[in-house]
Amino acid sequence: MTIIPLSRPTTRADAEALDRADPLAPLRAGFHLPDDILYLDGNSLGPLAYAVRDRVRAVVDAEWGQGLIGSWNEAGWVELPRRVGDKIAKLVGAAEGTIVATDSTSVNLFKVLAAATTLRPERRVVVSERSNFPTDLYMAEGLAALLARGHELRLADSADELPGLIDDSVAVLMLTHVNYRSGLVHDMAALTQAAHDAGALTVWDLAHSAGALPVDLAGADADFAVGCGYKYLNGGPGAPAFLYVAPRHQAEARQPLSGWFGHAAPFRFEPGYAPAPGIDRFLTGTPGVLSMSALDAALDLFGAVDMAALRQKSVALCEFFLARVEATSGALGVTLASPRDAARRGSQVSFAHPHAYAVMQALIARGVIGDFRAPDILRFGFTPLYTRFVDAFDAARELQAVLAVEEWKRPEFNVQRAVT
Amino acid sequence: MTIIPLSRPTTRADAEALDRADPLAPLRAGFHLPDDILYLDGNSLGPLAYAVRDRVRAVVDAEWGQGLIGSWNEAGWVELPRRVGDKIAKLVGAAEGTIVATDSTSVNLFKVLAAATTLRPERRVVVSERSNFPTDLYMAEGLAALLARGHELRLADSADELPGLIDDSVAVLMLTHVNYRSGLVHDMAALTQAAHDAGALTVWDLAHSAGALPVDLAGADADFAVGCGYKYLNGGPGAPAFLYVAPRHQAEARQPLSGWFGHAAPFRFEPGYAPAPGIDRFLTGTPGVLSMSALDAALDLFGAVDMAALRQKSVALCEFFLARVEATSGALGVTLASPRDAARRGSQVSFAHPHAYAVMQALIARGVIGDFRAPDILRFGFTPLYTRFVDAFDAARELQAVLAVEEWKRPEFNVQRAVT
Repeated sequence: MTIIPLSRPTTRADAEALDRADPLAPLRAGFHLPDDILYLDGNSLGPLAYAVRDRVRAVVDAEWGQGLIGSWNEAGWVELPRRVGDKIAKLVGAAEGTIVATDSTSVNLFKVLAAATTLRPERRVVVSERSNFPTDLYMAEGLAALLARGHELRLADSADELPGLIDDSVAVLMLTHVNYRSGLVHDMAALTQAAHDAGALTVWDLAHSAGALPVDLAGADADFAVGCGYKYLNGGPGAPAFLYVAPRHQAEARQPLSGWFGHAAPFRFEPGYAPAPGIDRFLTGTPGVLSMSALDAALDLFGAVDMAALRQKSVALCEFFLARVEATSGALGVTLASPRDAARRGSQVSFAHPHAYAVMQALIARGVIGDFRAPDILRFGFTPLYTRFVDAFDAARELQAVLAVEEWKRPEFNVQRAVT
Repeated sequence: MTIIPLSRPTTRADAEALDRADPLAPLRAGFHLPDDILYLDGNSLGPLAYAVRDRVRAVVDAEWGQGLIGSWNEAGWVELPRRVGDKIAKLVGAAEGTIVATDSTSVNLFKVLAAATTLRPERRVVVSERSNFPTDLYMAEGLAALLARGHELRLADSADELPGLIDDSVAVLMLTHVNYRSGLVHDMAALTQAAHDAGALTVWDLAHSAGALPVDLAGADADFAVGCGYKYLNGGPGAPAFLYVAPRHQAEARQPLSGWFGHAAPFRFEPGYAPAPGIDRFLTGTPGVLSMSALDAALDLFGAVDMAALRQKSVALCEFFLARVEATSGALGVTLASPRDAARRGSQVSFAHPHAYAVMQALIARGVIGDFRAPDILRFGFTPLYTRFVDAFDAARELQAVLAVEEWKRPEFNVQRAVT
């Protein structure tokens, strides 16, 4: 990989040189990326790959349209949750048969959190972070309210506080591996070890990790995990999510959403529930074949990509962007809201700005698509499968343009919308 | 509608006459139905409508491919669960704002069953039927095990037993409105009244009702309901399901899968859960946009169809088929397994046969697609939007052919497959 000395201001020619030297650059051709935008929001919704478009058409026209009910067998629909799960497993350091694609991240979190708390019946505390993605906290709250046995959420105000909160009252340490706002990466192995030392289990949310950076669930000895299909995995809007259960827990773990697809023999139509052996017992209802097929095809885009090479490009992109923004906009009101140390940062760079919402609206109007995250975060995702160094360069240039003339003060950029 | 006297044997010409006189016949042109099969399994998986195919393409290519993250606002993705729910509401006698499309039927059943049991905290019994669709029983079992407060399933062995099982220990009466095997239709209003008289609440599963026959949730005073998107609603394999909450329960009811889409302000990213007002609090994670859009478009196929007219055709189709089968195969080992009284039968006709599995395989080999349901049921769905009287005639003829020469005895029809 070309090395650009960060001791001098980088130029667009530097970015072009980095793109020419990028071994992953050819992968971009597999994605449909509109010409008129710079998309730095693949960590919120990954773009459409051409192979995904073609696969969805084939599923709709041939498998559903022609094959109809027979496609549950003939087209292998019934095996999709496992087949897709095994593809995800390769990206997150998990063995075959430990992951299924199913339901939403929130629903899956409920399943594994319920399973984990049931494995620690004498304990009442779930440790997490106040800055965790809210739905994770909401689901834990919902489970605790339903159980009505005095379960409580013990929330750390910072990552540093976490180890001190893990004691022998803790049933589960539930964390998102990469923080959605700051991009801070937790040390999964060390925190899992700390949890195990206290007799607790771990639930890891990989929403901003899977497909973004190397994850080693097995190596970290993680107990349970969940993750998202529509961010770095590019499965499409609201794609099925996934869940992981360590092999050592699969025989004993029970989850409460015990639907027919998790039954040992779903098509025998027996009135009593008998959990399937292995990971299948974590399935619930009928899989969403259209969405699941899109995710299945999207995962093939990772093909033979080495996760270490992916991470190397991700870090280089983020470092390049960070340096450009600080060089061009550092005096214009933005301050870094991500860890400066690349080793502790996921595949995103976040900046704080007191008018972040309006700034992001102004950027979007200029075709630079990032994310606002309340209350004051400008979030830029760098997804190495298709993002270029020139994208990073150009995005920094547009941010500077917005800030330099306070373009974000225009009224149209200050109208709140439903989703941002 | 043309009346064919059932006192004489019907002919294919009779079927053709009935088709010519059928006011719903033009609707068939909206569906892709392969030429070489007779599809009587739309109650398991509805066929592809051309408008659905086109809508999925537009969602993939334009909304996702071009619009990317902006489509949550611009294409109205965020409103899909409500918009689709309101379309379903028109088919099942529910008001606007009482139904959302989301998750799977199983997951939705867990939500409403948990909400209902929470509204009756002193009671421990859920009454249902042993012949209910198994996933409903499995989900209730999973909830009871999780609660660990002594909840029990009290199962009726027949519909007639139900009223006698409803006493003041009962929290919830949980029934599938139309039985998946026999097609027996429960009297929703009477059973709901019996439940209310005992101080219990009702959860109705409309999997084989919604889009199949008139349902009047509001008129029956039902408390909660769930239903399926991929049977009579034609939303595609694994389409999102739906749930209903009566207006009187919406402010008080809480469900445990309290994810961010059910939050009063999901995009404020607050750490504490506050349920949205109204039905939205029954949402959980990010909606599956591809699958949900397919369902949205499929519902438009119902257009201005009057449910009474739909039911009239459904009954006529079923009566015609029933009479043909009994006339041609009555002496060949099949016996009616559905109510003979059309008023008590859904939009299907089931026959028992000691070798039903092999018989159905042999029928499928002849291009007649029905369903085997364990242990001995041949199930034929009559979906009035696209099924013709000639289909009923021809299917009966093929069944007779299979039975007359015991074609089902061939070895290839006796190999069990994963899904049937």
